[in-house]
Amino acid sequence: MNSVINLKEKAKLFSDHWSPKVVAELNDYQFKLAKLEGEFEWHKHDDTDEAFLVQAGQLVIELFDRKVILHAGELFVVPKGVMHKPVAETECTVLIIEPKGVINTGEVNERTAENDIWI
Amino acid sequence: MNSVINLKEKAKLFSDHWSPKVVAELNDYQFKLAKLEGEFEWHKHDDTDEAFLVQAGQLVIELFDRKVILHAGELFVVPKGVMHKPVAETECTVLIIEPKGVINTGEVNERTAENDIWI
Repeated sequence: MNSVINLKEKAKLFSDHWSPKVVAELNDYQFKLAKLEGEFEWHKHDDTDEAFLVQAGQLVIELFDRKVILHAGELFVVPKGVMHKPVAETECTVLIIEPKGVINTGEVNERTAENDIWI
Repeated sequence: MNSVINLKEKAKLFSDHWSPKVVAELNDYQFKLAKLEGEFEWHKHDDTDEAFLVQAGQLVIELFDRKVILHAGELFVVPKGVMHKPVAETECTVLIIEPKGVINTGEVNERTAENDIWI
């Protein structure tokens, strides 16, 4: 049976950046905690929207025509097929909600994180 | 295009209890804010898991064999088909994540909230 997930406690269990860790599943969706710092790369997910709920710090999501700035307690959904580039000037912790199996870089490359790593 | 959703600001926009308000969609899933106070009723969702992420206050989810206690920043997923009863001794604000169209009472009755109400 499922247990209670304390997001702050879970975030203490890892320190690597750009490597989402699964904390829970909801049907075929996953909740993933990630620590971000620096600039990621432009990418998109052709088959799914992607939700970002910031837990600590500040996350900028660059879109083709604007920048979205997210603080703790703020949620943003990147629609499927939309190019985006996450940027965190200083370390940010974010909860990502998306279907299981989504590749963090959109297409596989040298920045693709291992998938389905649980903490 | 989607906008940034500040959950605390959204929570200030309503005061009724046991009536989830949609704040965002992720594919065919919805993020719903709800204020809870008092005891809900035993119910289950036969077709879906249901995620609760507490934003403020304390939420107890009674299950058939135990009680789960959730504080702000804590997440719990009730598996599909599992009977549960949410209880909040004092007001609690929670973010619910589940597929669009889920009926809050499982089966329709006098405590069924109107669905798909956005704030």
